[in-house]
Amino acid sequence: MPLQIATDFAFRAEEPTDVLLQFEAAMIPEQRLSEFRTELSSWDSFARIDAQDDIGDRLWVRAEGRFEASYRAVVEVDRLLTKLETLEKMDPLKLPGETVQYLFDSRYCRGDKFQSFVDAEFGDVSGGRQMLAMRDWIADNFTYAPGSSSATTTALDSFVERRGICRDYAHVMVTLARAAGVPARFVSCYAPDVTPPDFHAVAEVFLQDSTTPGGGAWYLLDATGMAEAGEIVKIGVGRDAADVSFMTSFGMTEFLEKTVTVTRV
Amino acid sequence: MPLQIATDFAFRAEEPTDVLLQFEAAMIPEQRLSEFRTELSSWDSFARIDAQDDIGDRLWVRAEGRFEASYRAVVEVDRLLTKLETLEKMDPLKLPGETVQYLFDSRYCRGDKFQSFVDAEFGDVSGGRQMLAMRDWIADNFTYAPGSSSATTTALDSFVERRGICRDYAHVMVTLARAAGVPARFVSCYAPDVTPPDFHAVAEVFLQDSTTPGGGAWYLLDATGMAEAGEIVKIGVGRDAADVSFMTSFGMTEFLEKTVTVTRV
Amino acid sequence: MPLQIATDFAFRAEEPTDVLLQFEAAMIPEQRLSEFRTELSSWDSFARIDAQDDIGDRLWVRAEGRFEASYRAVVEVDRLLTKLETLEKMDPLKLPGETVQYLFDSRYCRGDKFQSFVDAEFGDVSGGRQMLAMRDWIADNFTYAPGSSSATTTALDSFVERRGICRDYAHVMVTLARAAGVPARFVSCYAPDVTPPDFHAVAEVFLQDSTTPGGGAWYLLDATGMAEAGEIVKIGVGRDAADVSFMTSFGMTEFLEKTVTVTRV
Amino acid sequence: MPLQIATDFAFRAEEPTDVLLQFEAAMIPEQRLSEFRTELSSWDSFARIDAQDDIGDRLWVRAEGRFEASYRAVVEVDRLLTKLETLEKMDPLKLPGETVQYLFDSRYCRGDKFQSFVDAEFGDVSGGRQMLAMRDWIADNFTYAPGSSSATTTALDSFVERRGICRDYAHVMVTLARAAGVPARFVSCYAPDVTPPDFHAVAEVFLQDSTTPGGGAWYLLDATGMAEAGEIVKIGVGRDAADVSFMTSFGMTEFLEKTVTVTRV
Repeated sequence: MPLQIATDFAFRAEEPTDVLLQFEAAMIPEQRLSEFRTELSSWDSFARIDAQDDIGDRLWVRAEGRFEASYRAVVEVDRLLTKLETLEKMDPLKLPGETVQYLFDSRYCRGDKFQSFVDAEFGDVSGGRQMLAMRDWIADNFTYAPGSSSATTTALDSFVERRGICRDYAHVMVTLARAAGVPARFVSCYAPDVTPPDFHAVAEVFLQDSTTPGGGAWYLLDATGMAEAGEIVKIGVGRDAADVSFMTSFGMTEFLEKTVTVTRV
Repeated sequence: MPLQIATDFAFRAEEPTDVLLQFEAAMIPEQRLSEFRTELSSWDSFARIDAQDDIGDRLWVRAEGRFEASYRAVVEVDRLLTKLETLEKMDPLKLPGETVQYLFDSRYCRGDKFQSFVDAEFGDVSGGRQMLAMRDWIADNFTYAPGSSSATTTALDSFVERRGICRDYAHVMVTLARAAGVPARFVSCYAPDVTPPDFHAVAEVFLQDSTTPGGGAWYLLDATGMAEAGEIVKIGVGRDAADVSFMTSFGMTEFLEKTVTVTRV
Repeated sequence: MPLQIATDFAFRAEEPTDVLLQFEAAMIPEQRLSEFRTELSSWDSFARIDAQDDIGDRLWVRAEGRFEASYRAVVEVDRLLTKLETLEKMDPLKLPGETVQYLFDSRYCRGDKFQSFVDAEFGDVSGGRQMLAMRDWIADNFTYAPGSSSATTTALDSFVERRGICRDYAHVMVTLARAAGVPARFVSCYAPDVTPPDFHAVAEVFLQDSTTPGGGAWYLLDATGMAEAGEIVKIGVGRDAADVSFMTSFGMTEFLEKTVTVTRV
Repeated sequence: MPLQIATDFAFRAEEPTDVLLQFEAAMIPEQRLSEFRTELSSWDSFARIDAQDDIGDRLWVRAEGRFEASYRAVVEVDRLLTKLETLEKMDPLKLPGETVQYLFDSRYCRGDKFQSFVDAEFGDVSGGRQMLAMRDWIADNFTYAPGSSSATTTALDSFVERRGICRDYAHVMVTLARAAGVPARFVSCYAPDVTPPDFHAVAEVFLQDSTTPGGGAWYLLDATGMAEAGEIVKIGVGRDAADVSFMTSFGMTEFLEKTVTVTRV
């Protein structure tokens, strides 16, 4: 079922300020965009560049005064939906080179600290089953609480506080997976049923399907339980939220408003 | 003048353990390797993969018992040596897409926190002059003190403690550059005159030469003052030390010994 | 000149919740309260206990539903005002036992990290002159920016970010003093001219007047420059803000409103 | 059964350095010292002051060159041993004023972050049973691993890493108790059977015996399981390890050696 996405946001910059935006549905084989339109209140200084792992684009704008962005798209998700139970952890020595960076610690996700916990709590299973056990553990032990976390909250903070929003759930999932030696990345996305409506974030882990030659691929996991892999529209990926913020400002800006709606059509 | 590199290290793993190594001089145009030999005590389980930004290789090994690595190379560095004073900050909107990730916060380097300090201390200059002012400020205010920092020390810690080793100096340099909106990465390297002899680490910033069309390139900066750009042999690059550790162990290992020597020949 | 204090605040607790309050001017020799009245919307469950170092009181209340507190007082400050330039650092071996705890690291103030910086920046002076140099350094390098810090901001964060509110200024002052081996505590207080009007916070350092036998005493320092020692009305003291919050809730409460006014009469 | 304590340690200071020591068994009613002798290699500059909560003494020395300390004592512990199962959480409004500081966050122990976890994991019991459940949870989930933590390791770090030494176990116990609204302090102590032999650290919580009027008292808890309350010889107490380090140096010192033995006699 196609998803209709409508995103509008505005901010103000007193002085000319460089701002990096990433809010469009990525044009990748698993997502077919039938209609899409990006409107910016000023195109004077503008650049479009490839985003991380060639998934989606980043938009640079030089804003001054009130700046508005508006995005409309209809997206059909056509993603291979594999039961994670059947997947295996890939032998690290066989990992594609570009996935190795997703084993390393990043700004918000420090897997190294969690090895003992992961061994103790999830050591009796491996591969896809282990990832699902982690997802379920987070879902069981965390409370979804808008306002309880901030832009400085790390996976370690969230693990202790046992609450947060989608961003925090995804950070913890990414961190636990890395602690188990599974490459994991952070996915900024759109999804219906996100409450309150907003951009969404989930984790993605690299596992292998032993029935397929070659066999490694990225698989989505939403520890908040709000989105299904078949209805997740990827915007971009990164090591954690620092890499795929929908708006990164290089200077002072005042954020004014934002509305995000995703509906099945 | 060619540099002769000799590196030997050993560690022990009680159980079969995956270990990622990165210690060879990168084979890139600016470094000509005339002789090189990598010896590992076991090649049974081994994989060689591309490292970050295609600079250098990562080696996966599955170690059990005592594991030894030995590396010998003769390297001629042929790097364009530009005076940083003449370089300019690149307009962010013109940055090549793959450099944008080096503006973001990483595990050890959080540029966002330092914007006020950078504006106040280095706001009167820009581009290459600003990078040199940062390098000099670190050199003036920091004490090189082996043993004063650890694997968990961040740029923020070092900035407060005003001391550390090459890794910490490079982290602070990278962090200040990012706070000024200049892409900056961490470079693991070999260099002569490093005291005590060991692997070395420096920063690299992305600036442009306005006299050249296109014009953006990476330039090395060593805040410790121990190495010159013309004698730095790159091993690999990353967002910070988490990405280019010479040895990352996915399981328990006991480190036994290490010697690194770099001599002009 | 007497100061008239008027404080009103309200919060809501869905369930019966224990809340610790500390907002009254301390009754200590240097502060003469000529009129004072504390009104709470419920006195059913109430306890009054001594606060830290016997300076001021803490009030326990068990709140349910909307809870309001109102405080009015007229206070005459009669504090010995010594020029800090003339004071000396006390020989640690002569420090009164109860001041020693103020040399140790606390939640927000970790002096240990700052020893190198303090030696380098303030090592050429000592005693009261050193404390004044620290105060001036903070005043010169920091921007007073309401909203730029939060309840989790430490002195280390503020030192890097170079901005904050009175609480942050006081934390940095306390931390630098401790790093120099001078006992330092955090003072919650009232003062006129605080902008925007609110509770205020300053630092207090333990120094000695060499012209007086015995000679050690606590001296106030306001790095924000908003208050003079002769017009500071102490509420309470502690190792840092964690000890003298005007309201510490042991359970969920929703803060509703607060007004603080301090006027010369 | 009396315990014989023998402690010897030495350090070196290049320049005259103030050092604060706390290693003697506290002379408090519950501990009877029949023989004791403290020898310091220099008594020239020396001061003895009360330690926190009047439990034990702190010794100031001004050391230069090699400094040695030697302590011998025979101690009979005569402590009321109450089953914690029978104790209740004290109504916060009835807490003695001097215990309230032990509810607040300190350098290593931030109870505020753990309220959700404590509610979820230990919310079905209260008072002494809850404290025992916390102790057992730590014992079950943590690995005693000398060398796995350092002087900067916080309770939050240990909670995530699930390992540490007595100091870390005590920090986590103190933190969880505070998150449940129970005053908790850190106790530096001697105990037999500590492996490897060293100073020991445990937690102490303030609970009430409802069968006794007044009724609040401090009760010992050792999450490492190595010591029994009846054989713990207290040295001192504090909010956390920052307050009762056996040696706090205000300047550079080189630690040389330490032996601690505690034997039943």
